[in-house]
Amino acid sequence: MPSIVDEQIHPHASGEAEKTVNAHSTPQDLLLYAGWFCPFVQRTWLALEEKELPYEYREVNPYKKEKDFLEINPLGLVPAIVYQNKALCESLIINEFLEDAFPQAKPLLPKDPLERARVRLWIDHVSKKFNAAFFRTLQAQEEEKQKEALGELVEALQKYLDQVKGPWFSGEVFSLADITIAPWIIRLYILEEHRGFKDELVGGRWKEYEKLIKERPSVLKTTSEPQYYMEIYQRYLRNEAQSEVAKATRAGRALP
Amino acid sequence: MPSIVDEQIHPHASGEAEKTVNAHSTPQDLLLYAGWFCPFVQRTWLALEEKELPYEYREVNPYKKEKDFLEINPLGLVPAIVYQNKALCESLIINEFLEDAFPQAKPLLPKDPLERARVRLWIDHVSKKFNAAFFRTLQAQEEEKQKEALGELVEALQKYLDQVKGPWFSGEVFSLADITIAPWIIRLYILEEHRGFKDELVGGRWKEYEKLIKERPSVLKTTSEPQYYMEIYQRYLRNEAQSEVAKATRAGRALP
Repeated sequence: MPSIVDEQIHPHASGEAEKTVNAHSTPQDLLLYAGWFCPFVQRTWLALEEKELPYEYREVNPYKKEKDFLEINPLGLVPAIVYQNKALCESLIINEFLEDAFPQAKPLLPKDPLERARVRLWIDHVSKKFNAAFFRTLQAQEEEKQKEALGELVEALQKYLDQVKGPWFSGEVFSLADITIAPWIIRLYILEEHRGFKDELVGGRWKEYEKLIKERPSVLKTTSEPQYYMEIYQRYLRNEAQSEVAKATRAGRALP
Repeated sequence: MPSIVDEQIHPHASGEAEKTVNAHSTPQDLLLYAGWFCPFVQRTWLALEEKELPYEYREVNPYKKEKDFLEINPLGLVPAIVYQNKALCESLIINEFLEDAFPQAKPLLPKDPLERARVRLWIDHVSKKFNAAFFRTLQAQEEEKQKEALGELVEALQKYLDQVKGPWFSGEVFSLADITIAPWIIRLYILEEHRGFKDELVGGRWKEYEKLIKERPSVLKTTSEPQYYMEIYQRYLRNEAQSEVAKATRAGRALP
């Protein structure tokens, strides 16, 4: 009964991420509904940290949707934010919203319209190609399919890397592109241990970029201890996870 | 040999769309590489028309990629624009770019950050749910699968319609949400003739919204004569089309 297994996940963030949660436990105008383990949540969490916005962090188990959470967010997805009594979900759309709603905070999109477009184009690539390949690699059970998906994942990373101006995607300024890929860079060790991923497969400046991402203070501040992620991802590795992403991957559909 | 068939498509726009092409045949700073039949192209074409920007329309056959086109746009996808010697592709990203680059032109996104986010959220819904279901319905060969995909398409339209404030998606102002769905509304007659789609299946205010979209001047000005679309879509109906979208649909992958 995998859906019950999913409900029994470790209930809260650990390590550095737990400290950050505790520092954001008082009510604020901007409320983040989060699951500590969710890479999509981490994208929005990273944007909030990078922009240094005041926000309240509220942990929900998206597999066991509580009534007050569903009232505000009928789809029950995380991340969701509530601002001015309105709820909003979808990590990438929330991040664009934060850019629009708080123009005085540190921008995470370049000013130049063509460079903004380039950042959005490669965010789209990360979502459609890399993320989809990540979950396919994770959930594939036959060795043949694992290898095929891993090949696609490596190719998606190489194409992204070709576009990284350095040190960050858009040059000197850390942007929404770096934020969009960061949570999966943090979780690549799972594919390393179980699916044969190696940094060397990507090559080029990959290790350099990966190291910078892993050492970014906002990334450290929103990352829990590795053993707790592994517990979650064991369900994906057995293709038993019941998240929307896991189900879409099994059905050969676009990620939600 | 379907790839050769795809190369032999009708070479240019017809009807009202042909007049628009002729009115935009002189060189401009903003160049649109287009295929007259492509719904993704029509999204960007609509944005250019709505914003009343000066642009040059250049017809390319994306199935028969010419050298000068590939030089500027290595992926060979349409729509693509060239501006200040830089190429950009992906209809939705180009449309956001037009908002950013030409702030003095008519805006197609609401000013309020939460409403902008709502527009983007439902653009995402149209792309991921409705468009994917459209191509699945079109390309499915077994009756069972056609019905299943049609059911998903109808459900996606109903969910979208629930969010339409009226008359347009965002209320009084025509926005990128209306633009994103419009090219498929124009092409729904193909599913009506061949896959059992009926307006009544969607219900509610669907007919009203559909009629408004079909009568919008920018939509009329960018739409060719129906028989020429039908010629193109016959290949999809037989699941022989070789476009990236057709291939992704066959492979059970997210649309590119």
